[in-house]
Amino acid sequence: MSKPTAEQPPSPRTRVRRIAENAAYDRATLLAIVDAAYLCHIAFSDGSASHCIPTACWREGQHLYIHGSNGSRMLKALTSGADICVTITHLDGLVLARSAFNHSMNYRSAMIYGQFECVDDLQAKRDSLARFMEKLAPGRQAQIRPGNDKEFNATTVLRISLDEAACKVRTGGPVDDEEDLALPVWAGVLPLIQQRGAPIQDPACQQAAPEHVLAWQADSAEIPAQ
Amino acid sequence: MSKPTAEQPPSPRTRVRRIAENAAYDRATLLAIVDAAYLCHIAFSDGSASHCIPTACWREGQHLYIHGSNGSRMLKALTSGADICVTITHLDGLVLARSAFNHSMNYRSAMIYGQFECVDDLQAKRDSLARFMEKLAPGRQAQIRPGNDKEFNATTVLRISLDEAACKVRTGGPVDDEEDLALPVWAGVLPLIQQRGAPIQDPACQQAAPEHVLAWQADSAEIPAQ
Repeated sequence: MSKPTAEQPPSPRTRVRRIAENAAYDRATLLAIVDAAYLCHIAFSDGSASHCIPTACWREGQHLYIHGSNGSRMLKALTSGADICVTITHLDGLVLARSAFNHSMNYRSAMIYGQFECVDDLQAKRDSLARFMEKLAPGRQAQIRPGNDKEFNATTVLRISLDEAACKVRTGGPVDDEEDLALPVWAGVLPLIQQRGAPIQDPACQQAAPEHVLAWQADSAEIPAQ
Repeated sequence: MSKPTAEQPPSPRTRVRRIAENAAYDRATLLAIVDAAYLCHIAFSDGSASHCIPTACWREGQHLYIHGSNGSRMLKALTSGADICVTITHLDGLVLARSAFNHSMNYRSAMIYGQFECVDDLQAKRDSLARFMEKLAPGRQAQIRPGNDKEFNATTVLRISLDEAACKVRTGGPVDDEEDLALPVWAGVLPLIQQRGAPIQDPACQQAAPEHVLAWQADSAEIPAQ
């Protein structure tokens, strides 16, 4: 199991208590987890109930960005000043131990606490959304019809600082009790990988595939180290 | 885009407002999304802050189960009677449209609202954890060292009813504005698939791989219909 050096002191909210040896507070681990994600889950309370909503995300510098329609209940709730929690999780494998109790999973997760702020400046909003496109499909922004004023006006962009964040990472094989090691039981890891499938062209589209489509599978993320 | 027939009326909390045509309230869609997941994200408030914590999950009948250490802050908070929200999300692809605005993602998500209850009965707890193992690795429970009393006593199993749940599903290609269809832009879907990697045997283990390990990749989930 890898345990990156702690570089950033945790806050009371981000200090990992459970299996604390899997905690990581260093920036490189956090940014790698965030950048590998297309979506996050956001927990917030609207006063009467807790909600957990998945949404697309991207990073710029030391902020995580999300966007949506102005009419979204979630975006309205998130801009009301409420403290929220954003979590990103990558599941990397099932860890099969010799005892039931020591079974586990390999994962990389990041929890970010704080408040969202609205990106009100129109140019900043346009730039953010262009960076989101660049994450999804490098080079595509220059090829498509860009957003018009009506579309930009209907879209809200929010961001949250990555200042208060903590990661939890488990890698490697099973950790069995000493007395179980001799048991005649297969032990190891069953890896899970987010794979990129062959692009599916819109039947109504006659265009040749651009570079970001041709490179989709070639650029596929490598199998994470187990 | 597929839109299963609504069979179960939504509650005020589960009625999908945003892109309501992607909502699904039928049981088959819900169970398929839940059964395809190894983990869920749980949103809860501890009174001062919202938290979003990823954890392993499995289903038995009309309940979703989770487990953890008795000492877990999350499990304590979840058994305090608080209303919580559990969300499962599968990301199936990036949807590249001819305009920036119409880009989207294909996904299957389920949100479950309610309260967790503790599985206190010892036999029920053992049976639940055995079913969890069956989900992870069919047939494995009979091969491993089962939990002992100390391990079971240190473990809390919780369940939540699937009664108040809603799904949101997007499939298919981009939906462009009519006036954008003739633009010289590639349009289509870049699929994302959760793939199973080759099993990695613990170097300290000399056992031949059992059936659930041999079948891991053969049983790999098919590419979801786009």
